Amino acid sequence: MDILVLNGPNLGHLGQRQPDVYGVLGMEAVPDLVRSVLGAQADVVQLTFFQSNSEGALIDRLELAWQNTIHGIVFNAGAYTHTSLAVADCLAWIKIPCVEVHISNVHARTTPLRQTSLMARHCLGSIAGFGLLGYALAVQALVQHLGQP
Amino acid sequence: MDILVLNGPNLGHLGQRQPDVYGVLGMEAVPDLVRSVLGAQADVVQLTFFQSNSEGALIDRLELAWQNTIHGIVFNAGAYTHTSLAVADCLAWIKIPCVEVHISNVHARTTPLRQTSLMARHCLGSIAGFGLLGYALAVQALVQHLGQP
Amino acid sequence: MDILVLNGPNLGHLGQRQPDVYGVLGMEAVPDLVRSVLGAQADVVQLTFFQSNSEGALIDRLELAWQNTIHGIVFNAGAYTHTSLAVADCLAWIKIPCVEVHISNVHARTTPLRQTSLMARHCLGSIAGFGLLGYALAVQALVQHLGQP
Amino acid sequence: MDILVLNGPNLGHLGQRQPDVYGVLGMEAVPDLVRSVLGAQADVVQLTFFQSNSEGALIDRLELAWQNTIHGIVFNAGAYTHTSLAVADCLAWIKIPCVEVHISNVHARTTPLRQTSLMARHCLGSIAGFGLLGYALAVQALVQHLGQP
Amino acid sequence: MDILVLNGPNLGHLGQRQPDVYGVLGMEAVPDLVRSVLGAQADVVQLTFFQSNSEGALIDRLELAWQNTIHGIVFNAGAYTHTSLAVADCLAWIKIPCVEVHISNVHARTTPLRQTSLMARHCLGSIAGFGLLGYALAVQALVQHLGQP
Amino acid sequence: MDILVLNGPNLGHLGQRQPDVYGVLGMEAVPDLVRSVLGAQADVVQLTFFQSNSEGALIDRLELAWQNTIHGIVFNAGAYTHTSLAVADCLAWIKIPCVEVHISNVHARTTPLRQTSLMARHCLGSIAGFGLLGYALAVQALVQHLGQP
Amino acid sequence: MDILVLNGPNLGHLGQRQPDVYGVLGMEAVPDLVRSVLGAQADVVQLTFFQSNSEGALIDRLELAWQNTIHGIVFNAGAYTHTSLAVADCLAWIKIPCVEVHISNVHARTTPLRQTSLMARHCLGSIAGFGLLGYALAVQALVQHLGQP
Amino acid sequence: MDILVLNGPNLGHLGQRQPDVYGVLGMEAVPDLVRSVLGAQADVVQLTFFQSNSEGALIDRLELAWQNTIHGIVFNAGAYTHTSLAVADCLAWIKIPCVEVHISNVHARTTPLRQTSLMARHCLGSIAGFGLLGYALAVQALVQHLGQP
Amino acid sequence: MDILVLNGPNLGHLGQRQPDVYGVLGMEAVPDLVRSVLGAQADVVQLTFFQSNSEGALIDRLELAWQNTIHGIVFNAGAYTHTSLAVADCLAWIKIPCVEVHISNVHARTTPLRQTSLMARHCLGSIAGFGLLGYALAVQALVQHLGQP
Amino acid sequence: MDILVLNGPNLGHLGQRQPDVYGVLGMEAVPDLVRSVLGAQADVVQLTFFQSNSEGALIDRLELAWQNTIHGIVFNAGAYTHTSLAVADCLAWIKIPCVEVHISNVHARTTPLRQTSLMARHCLGSIAGFGLLGYALAVQALVQHLGQP
Amino acid sequence: MDILVLNGPNLGHLGQRQPDVYGVLGMEAVPDLVRSVLGAQADVVQLTFFQSNSEGALIDRLELAWQNTIHGIVFNAGAYTHTSLAVADCLAWIKIPCVEVHISNVHARTTPLRQTSLMARHCLGSIAGFGLLGYALAVQALVQHLGQP
Amino acid sequence: MDILVLNGPNLGHLGQRQPDVYGVLGMEAVPDLVRSVLGAQADVVQLTFFQSNSEGALIDRLELAWQNTIHGIVFNAGAYTHTSLAVADCLAWIKIPCVEVHISNVHARTTPLRQTSLMARHCLGSIAGFGLLGYALAVQALVQHLGQP
Repeated sequence: MDILVLNGPNLGHLGQRQPDVYGVLGMEAVPDLVRSVLGAQADVVQLTFFQSNSEGALIDRLELAWQNTIHGIVFNAGAYTHTSLAVADCLAWIKIPCVEVHISNVHARTTPLRQTSLMARHCLGSIAGFGLLGYALAVQALVQHLGQP
Repeated sequence: MDILVLNGPNLGHLGQRQPDVYGVLGMEAVPDLVRSVLGAQADVVQLTFFQSNSEGALIDRLELAWQNTIHGIVFNAGAYTHTSLAVADCLAWIKIPCVEVHISNVHARTTPLRQTSLMARHCLGSIAGFGLLGYALAVQALVQHLGQP
Repeated sequence: MDILVLNGPNLGHLGQRQPDVYGVLGMEAVPDLVRSVLGAQADVVQLTFFQSNSEGALIDRLELAWQNTIHGIVFNAGAYTHTSLAVADCLAWIKIPCVEVHISNVHARTTPLRQTSLMARHCLGSIAGFGLLGYALAVQALVQHLGQP
Repeated sequence: MDILVLNGPNLGHLGQRQPDVYGVLGMEAVPDLVRSVLGAQADVVQLTFFQSNSEGALIDRLELAWQNTIHGIVFNAGAYTHTSLAVADCLAWIKIPCVEVHISNVHARTTPLRQTSLMARHCLGSIAGFGLLGYALAVQALVQHLGQP
Repeated sequence: MDILVLNGPNLGHLGQRQPDVYGVLGMEAVPDLVRSVLGAQADVVQLTFFQSNSEGALIDRLELAWQNTIHGIVFNAGAYTHTSLAVADCLAWIKIPCVEVHISNVHARTTPLRQTSLMARHCLGSIAGFGLLGYALAVQALVQHLGQP
Repeated sequence: MDILVLNGPNLGHLGQRQPDVYGVLGMEAVPDLVRSVLGAQADVVQLTFFQSNSEGALIDRLELAWQNTIHGIVFNAGAYTHTSLAVADCLAWIKIPCVEVHISNVHARTTPLRQTSLMARHCLGSIAGFGLLGYALAVQALVQHLGQP
Repeated sequence: MDILVLNGPNLGHLGQRQPDVYGVLGMEAVPDLVRSVLGAQADVVQLTFFQSNSEGALIDRLELAWQNTIHGIVFNAGAYTHTSLAVADCLAWIKIPCVEVHISNVHARTTPLRQTSLMARHCLGSIAGFGLLGYALAVQALVQHLGQP
Repeated sequence: MDILVLNGPNLGHLGQRQPDVYGVLGMEAVPDLVRSVLGAQADVVQLTFFQSNSEGALIDRLELAWQNTIHGIVFNAGAYTHTSLAVADCLAWIKIPCVEVHISNVHARTTPLRQTSLMARHCLGSIAGFGLLGYALAVQALVQHLGQP
Repeated sequence: MDILVLNGPNLGHLGQRQPDVYGVLGMEAVPDLVRSVLGAQADVVQLTFFQSNSEGALIDRLELAWQNTIHGIVFNAGAYTHTSLAVADCLAWIKIPCVEVHISNVHARTTPLRQTSLMARHCLGSIAGFGLLGYALAVQALVQHLGQP
Repeated sequence: MDILVLNGPNLGHLGQRQPDVYGVLGMEAVPDLVRSVLGAQADVVQLTFFQSNSEGALIDRLELAWQNTIHGIVFNAGAYTHTSLAVADCLAWIKIPCVEVHISNVHARTTPLRQTSLMARHCLGSIAGFGLLGYALAVQALVQHLGQP
Repeated sequence: MDILVLNGPNLGHLGQRQPDVYGVLGMEAVPDLVRSVLGAQADVVQLTFFQSNSEGALIDRLELAWQNTIHGIVFNAGAYTHTSLAVADCLAWIKIPCVEVHISNVHARTTPLRQTSLMARHCLGSIAGFGLLGYALAVQALVQHLGQP
Repeated sequence: MDILVLNGPNLGHLGQRQPDVYGVLGMEAVPDLVRSVLGAQADVVQLTFFQSNSEGALIDRLELAWQNTIHGIVFNAGAYTHTSLAVADCLAWIKIPCVEVHISNVHARTTPLRQTSLMARHCLGSIAGFGLLGYALAVQALVQHLGQP
């Protein structure tokens, strides 16, 4: 089971940036979290990581996933969640099962611009507010979804 | 670890209501899902279930949780998610860690009235779109949160 | 043909409350009005009346109607017409044919909050502005609808 | 009792246009429906029918009704319901009792432009969603209104 | 100096309609009012009157004015003031000096739909609130405008 | 003079809930505050206290007040101030003089949803921002109002 | 007949300011324009002129008019037309017949802030777009209004 | 292949009206433009032209096209594009393939009222900004559409 | 304890202006009302009265209060409540405890412009709807606030 | 005549992506379509194709077109049509004649975000809804525009 | 080169008011700052200072500048920046080059009312967020502007 | 003192692009302007220039500045000022003092989208409307800010 873990803008320095807010762990901690949540199921999962600050590069990477028949996507689109119609259009046509992840609870933010996710209608579901654990919960949800007949 | 699993209006007939949409499983399937996600960790968790169609009864139950020092809440407020300022105010002052759960991906809905969660800013985080599995993922997130120093 | 006549908040004192505005007739006048509109057809109709000021109790009653296989509903939701997403969700899933009734012509009101009916998209149709006669016209419309192949 | 049954734009081909949606009955079926709803009362009612696609012609016809002292109007203004301030102004000053009728349940439509009726505040009430039967229920409501002291 | 006095919908029964509100005078009183305001200047003015309830007929009449080189227009568009983009477009291209007249003080109305005049930017100016005298003041303003080098 | 002091949702734990914000006094302190503000006038006042988190129960209590001919109401509707059209409708028809009270200065809040009081137009006036003293000032204002011929 | 001609901010240099736009005539030309419009009627009219850039000074002047029983007011409030609730409140209570005048056709402006007149509902009517002649037409309208029984 | 070329309000004087803006060509130039774009294909096309300033007359003409089984429509609805819900309703039910044409680039206009086409969702597509050539391009697009199996 | 009682525009003629609405009492009645509410406490209070129609003069007076170390302010800003950002800014920086007073229940008004108080966030609280008694209740609230440690 | 055919995000897999919706033809079919529409005129046209998912790369390409003096542009900006102010700014200053193309009829979409084209005011015109044929019609419109004196 | 430095409401106590926020320097420090930024160029600049809390007085002062042919204006309009249409109208017609200055970074404020400057379109440019240094930078910008041919 | 001068989209051809509007000077003129404004202070300043049309590249450059400990940033984000939440998020976390610069007076633009700067709340201040001189004034403001203890 090939899963792409995709991160958008300002997510390239997790673990270094504002460690008092985001903690000292970076994306390299995610495989262990996945193993602790999935147990033995974790062996069938192959994770690939990619991060870019650029809208076009994220679309390119999603198109590549479509060509390589990636099975599922865990996607934290950062600020593009709210502004990038182009990324949303790409999710719409590649039709790879995708789970939306946010490190903090974005649904609790009151800025109107932050309240709408353009990604949501092209995703299975959404997980927000649980830090890096959210990525592992998302992998778990994808595995269950892909394992259904 | 005592966890209250609270369901709001129209969630009293899961498993019977529209089985082609919501599946034939009801809330009684949740404990097994929790065990499969948490593994051995599941032993320390004690789940209590409650459902009501009435806004006042949900607030009463939340206040009781506060008196009985429940450790965490998994809450699917149904339509009250979007309309009940009173339930939100209650979450605000009882201050018990709470995770918001929705069976379908509510963030993908386009009705404005459905796009805002009044609960969100009083919750750790939110999980939506993964059916009953979402309750188990929420318990997992609560357990990790409560286990932190 | 079993028909539930359901009234929401502030409709428990019809005939006593502001008789100069609403007239001196209460809900007990409805069966006669039904008979005068339906004539002989009225014999096949069995009316059940229920009123509550509480949002949760109205949902409980609608779920009961679903369990008892009521054939049709005549529903005046009062102020909940405009605010109760939870009642609307219930109408959506029980799928019993329902006619919306209002005693005054609510479509003529200019308060924005009064201009939208959350019930409408889960109802066959709507009748407003004709006092208690509206309940009888609604029964007539239900009978015709249920009598169609 | 002289009653004008007035139809606005796109209502001239009922019975021919999209019979799978609107049925095979045209306006010529209305007198029978009136008789079945009113019974003996139907004898005192004289119906006059008029249809036009033109806003100006509808106003001309309403002014004529004012000159001929028509007792009541059953009015389906079609799309002009939502856009014609001029027709609404005319209803406002001729002051003949009027009932608004719609064949489908317009209150269930979600297009904002379709959600407001400019006619409503100059009408006794409104009936929507019951096909041609709605015209007969409207006549019944008018007869009761005109028969009151 | 040829001046067209143009009236839109619901202005065909001035003097008969609601005499307690609009007075018992009809458009036939306008020539005398013009004479009393203009004095001797009134001799050079030739007035032509036209009224229609129909949007298309008003546009036809304005195009005719353009062909006959009418010098000025006094225009009370009634409810079309607020809704007819097509009439406004016509005023825009025929480019005949035009003065907007309203019998009552429309600027004091609080309905949003009544607060915007689509005609205004294609008119010299606007006079509202002075009953039929407004037509005479408008003629006076046109005469001065046309008399300027 | 019988006065009902009515509290809505989340006001059942005053004195215990967040004492650093709301102080350690509960509703049991109100009678003394009333006595200090009214002096000898306080003897003619009989206070009855009621609190509920449920919208329906508050309406039931208001209807009871109407049957028992309570003379005046001091009402802190909590979050229902902004959302409960049903409670507002009840105030509208029972027509008992009512004063709106808020513990904090709600008019200073910037959330739009918090800026409108649905209760206001059915109340004599409003007092906000003075803690529990506000209840006593409200009783004083009611006494003066009821004492006027 | 005593009439106050009142001008608000930025109207103190008419005739000097931008003469290519506003012409070389200042307010001293108004009496002649009044005489040419009113003819012999002009003899019974006594005009008083006042201009100020200050909101408070305009209110003081309106209060003085109320004490001196001025019969009518011709008022060009300049930019305060759109922003001064305080001036509008003053017009509301002094209740002297007032006509709103604007030199240019303000109804043709597209800036939202310029589209609403706070003065309008306290005025008989409005005249806009005819330069200084507008003041004379306003006097004519006032004279006719004051001459009515 | 029978194609109706339909023009709405203010389009009856193309070639005469503002020749510096719209050019000196009128609708009579369209057949040649069609021939130059379609070449030999033009022989199978039969064009019928109709123009009216009246909303009702345009609906009447569209209903006639439905009775005469016209194959396709090229429609420039002028200002009714943005305001006539009634014309749009007619396009919706006659279901004849239709292409929307505008002489200027209406999508570049910034007036909100001009930014929405009520016709669009009942048309194959839209062509705007290319003068009379747009009618010929529209015929070309219709011919290709109708020629598809 | 020095308290400034400050009144804004159109509040200079209380008692004379519209006595049927506002009563025959003017501000000179306030000291007696203060004494009847405060009893013996009234002796420690020194009231200073000031009224102006001018925005700048009110700011000047508030700055003077800051220089003279006035202890508290009772402020009825009239229409400036809703429009004067400049007065609100002044309250913000002088930081003298202030209570907002309105003679009528402004919260019941439905004009949007009247629904927001720019003063509110710089005031302790607000009292509205109780006529001149409101000034005395405000003094009582200030005295209690200033007497706290 | 050098013409750049520019495609934005998600348009790089036409012919492969969702062939049941978009057909099996890719951009390589465009030259033949151009030849069939233009006939002999096609010989003078030199087409250059470019596609990118990246906003910055599209701007770079447009700037290059400006340096190489491309004569015209056919531009399908995909989702950037609605969101990229930066691309629109570029079109504004390079001032090369440009025609906007969309494969489907975007004007029929009801998502508000999809209803505005930021490109439109910097384009000659727009063609939407005719699949790949739209690119050929756009080339035809450009050729005519460039051939004008 | 004569330059007027104009300050609006609440700017009369700079240096004394909230010194921890605004610093201990008042307007008397501005000439030195100007000298340090302009160097020798400062000799040709003559500064005049004026401050008022009153909207009318600021307009009077701007009209005086127009009569005295001041060359440039540095203007901090304080809260009137956002509310005074009358001051903006004055800037519009006196046409003296003007630079808008704000002590704090007003563009970072989130209150909607603070986000629009009515002055901006009548100014060369704007400088905000640099304390009193902003006045000197504004003078520098004016000097360069006035020195251009 | 290391200062990064960062330019966003469409700012790469200053001096060449529309020289009649923007002048013939490009960014290479900025160092001289800085020297003329700062005088001797200019020696301690080391400027680095970077421009990109790509949102992602700007974020990359800002992250690099954070790694290289640049002391200050002068940033003209072009159209991204109003749309790029991602760039704003980056400014928020790198926390390097930044001054916003615009060549024209953007605050005078009336397009709502242009009226909000997403950058502003993460910047010291803003300078707009003075052409390239604005960059030098920004450097001066940064030098003063960085020189403060």
